[in-house]
Amino acid sequence: MEKARHLRHLLASGRLIRAAGAHDGLGAVLVEEAGFDAVWASSFEVSAARALPDASLLTMTEYLQAAVHLDRVCSLPVIADCDTGFGNALNVAHMVTEYEAAGIAGVCMEDKTFPKVNSFAARGQDLADTAEFAHKVRVARNTARGDDFLVIARTEAFIAGFGVETVLERAHAYVDAGADAILVHSKGTAPDQILAFLKKWRSPVPVVAVPTTYSSWHACDAHAAGVSMLIYANHGLRAKVAATRHVLEAISAHGSSAGIEPDITSMKEIFALQRLDEWIALNP
Amino acid sequence: MEKARHLRHLLASGRLIRAAGAHDGLGAVLVEEAGFDAVWASSFEVSAARALPDASLLTMTEYLQAAVHLDRVCSLPVIADCDTGFGNALNVAHMVTEYEAAGIAGVCMEDKTFPKVNSFAARGQDLADTAEFAHKVRVARNTARGDDFLVIARTEAFIAGFGVETVLERAHAYVDAGADAILVHSKGTAPDQILAFLKKWRSPVPVVAVPTTYSSWHACDAHAAGVSMLIYANHGLRAKVAATRHVLEAISAHGSSAGIEPDITSMKEIFALQRLDEWIALNP
Amino acid sequence: MEKARHLRHLLASGRLIRAAGAHDGLGAVLVEEAGFDAVWASSFEVSAARALPDASLLTMTEYLQAAVHLDRVCSLPVIADCDTGFGNALNVAHMVTEYEAAGIAGVCMEDKTFPKVNSFAARGQDLADTAEFAHKVRVARNTARGDDFLVIARTEAFIAGFGVETVLERAHAYVDAGADAILVHSKGTAPDQILAFLKKWRSPVPVVAVPTTYSSWHACDAHAAGVSMLIYANHGLRAKVAATRHVLEAISAHGSSAGIEPDITSMKEIFALQRLDEWIALNP
Amino acid sequence: MEKARHLRHLLASGRLIRAAGAHDGLGAVLVEEAGFDAVWASSFEVSAARALPDASLLTMTEYLQAAVHLDRVCSLPVIADCDTGFGNALNVAHMVTEYEAAGIAGVCMEDKTFPKVNSFAARGQDLADTAEFAHKVRVARNTARGDDFLVIARTEAFIAGFGVETVLERAHAYVDAGADAILVHSKGTAPDQILAFLKKWRSPVPVVAVPTTYSSWHACDAHAAGVSMLIYANHGLRAKVAATRHVLEAISAHGSSAGIEPDITSMKEIFALQRLDEWIALNP
Repeated sequence: MEKARHLRHLLASGRLIRAAGAHDGLGAVLVEEAGFDAVWASSFEVSAARALPDASLLTMTEYLQAAVHLDRVCSLPVIADCDTGFGNALNVAHMVTEYEAAGIAGVCMEDKTFPKVNSFAARGQDLADTAEFAHKVRVARNTARGDDFLVIARTEAFIAGFGVETVLERAHAYVDAGADAILVHSKGTAPDQILAFLKKWRSPVPVVAVPTTYSSWHACDAHAAGVSMLIYANHGLRAKVAATRHVLEAISAHGSSAGIEPDITSMKEIFALQRLDEWIALNP
Repeated sequence: MEKARHLRHLLASGRLIRAAGAHDGLGAVLVEEAGFDAVWASSFEVSAARALPDASLLTMTEYLQAAVHLDRVCSLPVIADCDTGFGNALNVAHMVTEYEAAGIAGVCMEDKTFPKVNSFAARGQDLADTAEFAHKVRVARNTARGDDFLVIARTEAFIAGFGVETVLERAHAYVDAGADAILVHSKGTAPDQILAFLKKWRSPVPVVAVPTTYSSWHACDAHAAGVSMLIYANHGLRAKVAATRHVLEAISAHGSSAGIEPDITSMKEIFALQRLDEWIALNP
Repeated sequence: MEKARHLRHLLASGRLIRAAGAHDGLGAVLVEEAGFDAVWASSFEVSAARALPDASLLTMTEYLQAAVHLDRVCSLPVIADCDTGFGNALNVAHMVTEYEAAGIAGVCMEDKTFPKVNSFAARGQDLADTAEFAHKVRVARNTARGDDFLVIARTEAFIAGFGVETVLERAHAYVDAGADAILVHSKGTAPDQILAFLKKWRSPVPVVAVPTTYSSWHACDAHAAGVSMLIYANHGLRAKVAATRHVLEAISAHGSSAGIEPDITSMKEIFALQRLDEWIALNP
Repeated sequence: MEKARHLRHLLASGRLIRAAGAHDGLGAVLVEEAGFDAVWASSFEVSAARALPDASLLTMTEYLQAAVHLDRVCSLPVIADCDTGFGNALNVAHMVTEYEAAGIAGVCMEDKTFPKVNSFAARGQDLADTAEFAHKVRVARNTARGDDFLVIARTEAFIAGFGVETVLERAHAYVDAGADAILVHSKGTAPDQILAFLKKWRSPVPVVAVPTTYSSWHACDAHAAGVSMLIYANHGLRAKVAATRHVLEAISAHGSSAGIEPDITSMKEIFALQRLDEWIALNP
């Protein structure tokens, strides 16, 4: 588990860790190419890539498979977005066993009830009981065979409409249960909730933020405010949709792909991403 | 197998069928949205999405899974790019059984030896023996339980450096063996090889072309020249790479995603592609 | 969906339908060989074959894959044991879409909460709210594209300690919601609970029973009492454990397999089950 | 990779290593329970469990998944039967990357051409070119990231009708290419071919034998003759068929399972194998 160890070291280094979301191996390669520190196996991205809602429809099997695909083709550690842990404490134990054995560097679980709905959806943001979720965190931590395997507890209390006191209370409960980091989620258009939380956060346990809606927050400002890790969780998928849509519509409308060829990556460059020459060289 | 029947009807209609490649469900949804008639489960796209070369490294299991993911979320028929048929005639029989039972409308096999390398790669374009490949086509046709299931035979003779006579000879052999359509592949920058073939093709069996390198060929010209189906095989994947690269590099360089937000699809639009509201409405 | 239609016809015929559990393709072949009418893709068997508890740890992906493996190698219809439907009504809709598209003849859902625990376990037999489960049955029925696809509602009310009135009330609610058959589960050592239910059951909707604990109940008696389908749900798996244990222990103890060779099937007979000769004949 | 290291130590210890075949997690648990040292992820067992021939129809994906299922539920190292390496040197490199990353302790490849047919089948025993297979062994060895990961080269030269000199020549070529052990396969009813080989084998590289047809050979005699590892490759599967057949036929014939209940493992014992109580105890 060298990758888990590496991720631990990064978190302990004090510098800002930046992760970016991916839903397939190619995305992970591009995340590494762009200089990020870790890959976020985003359940939003993975479900959207299936054209299915991020509502606990895809299974742990499918999310794990996606995470493994990311892991195998890049040298970055993969952090798996594991939603609510896929059920109760038994599911969490099974999940940690499977993800750790598969070489994933860490998991993140959120304190909503199963089945969940994506945090940016208008409905369905039901929080799990604090003690119950803390128990799941404890089981996750105890199940991990290696000390380096990372267990991130994510609180959706802001998402569910609660104030900073609730968020702090939950965050502390999860740290007490063994969480290695706390992800505080927010759908504000500015990072006010995150800042309010950070202002009162006294624990040495690192804090993770996901600047999807408060996209103007500069990484340096986040770091200065006390964030240890930023996850750009879904931009690759959103880039893909815009671009694929544009290209397919253009081909459909113009009767050939000639017009959009300059906008798309050449076959030769794709071959390079696939490392085709290295692979072919294995044959005498 | 309504989709296979629909695809048959399209091919029999005399109008040009346009297919576009996809590697995941989201891609299939975008292909349908853009008005194409069918989805091409491109093995180049599927392998590139894994950041692995298109060299028979991914398995039938993985290609079938990808094809199923495309099929389940769109109403278009899916045509599966099945490379060389994954081995010998036994593998082909197994393949047809599995793809047909899974609801895929048709398969396409090419006359190279296993393991193959992508047609646009400089090396490894070894043709299978004509009679041996014709036998595989016959086994595919005989294994299909439904008459509508489509078996497309693809000849790589132009790719391997042979002339039009070889291509014609192979195409006829495959038609005699039961092929429902002939895909003639070419890596010319103009459609000259395809035109040379079409000029001498007297069979009523429809011809399929893949305008990757001869991208300026207009669909109307292709149709007028005798092409029944055009497959835009890899543009979605290539669009995705260009766009994802741009966006991740921008975030990495600028310290936030603010600058690229206008270039990427909004979360709300992704929710629409996921049909989130329809799904949530199932809960009372 | 010929198999779903066939299963419908069987149920409408008035004769007793007998299903047996399997967890892999080989089991399904043996179920067919022994003269059963249908294969039960038992979640107990599938999870036990993984040496994991029957407690919603395995995912829909894994259960569906197992069901598909059973389906592809035998001509019998496969009825999939789908536990609680894997979550809420959204999960149920997704489940039915996937199982039906994959060619499975029908599904069975039980009225416990997710995650469930096996009915014969001492703990964790929590019933879902009747209306909520009825809603899931309705969503299952409405999601199925074909009329023949079978939706069996299974009530665990006896298992959870309730009396026959509760069982009847639930069974009627599920029939009103569109259930095609009612599975009444019981862990009695005699079929008394089933008989008590049948005595008061006035609906034409067929009743299914699973004689695991009341194993002495003869099929003819069950049929005479009003049972339409009997599922021998787990005997293949239990036979496998006893036999494998015996054989491995003998080899380990005696230093060779000579002593147990007469007890195990010959390689030649396994080849016959694999239809090796038929497959090899595909190669010229 | 503690398991790979453990397997290395076992092989270096000088004592006889005994492995037994399994096709699912439950089988692996029973192999461990019976006191074996390692689990053999038998491609014959895995394909037979699917009721498909052992003829390269199942894919690497499916064999790897089976191996992972064995690995996750027992503490023994798993050695994966990888047939011919699933294609050429590229496929071998991909295979080693995947198996090692998944936690499998080692792989075994045989020197037949892809697609292969089971060694005990009458047809299709075509040997690969010695240098070509040695190259695959070298690629396997070079691809492994850890020194402990085991690469076993299996020669089918006796199976293909060649004499001991050919077997020795091939075995030496594979050792020169980096093989960590040599599996010499034979379908003789006595271990004469193995003995003839061992008599002339001067290399310190350990020798593996598979006493399927020469089942009377006692482990102590094999060890004394120079065998380092014995693989009882298929007995669990064969036990399962005999027992399942017997039980299903009895239920079918007698109208109830009462008669065979004493022959099959109780639900309670299956629960114990599933460690149900341990799992349930995770919930407060």
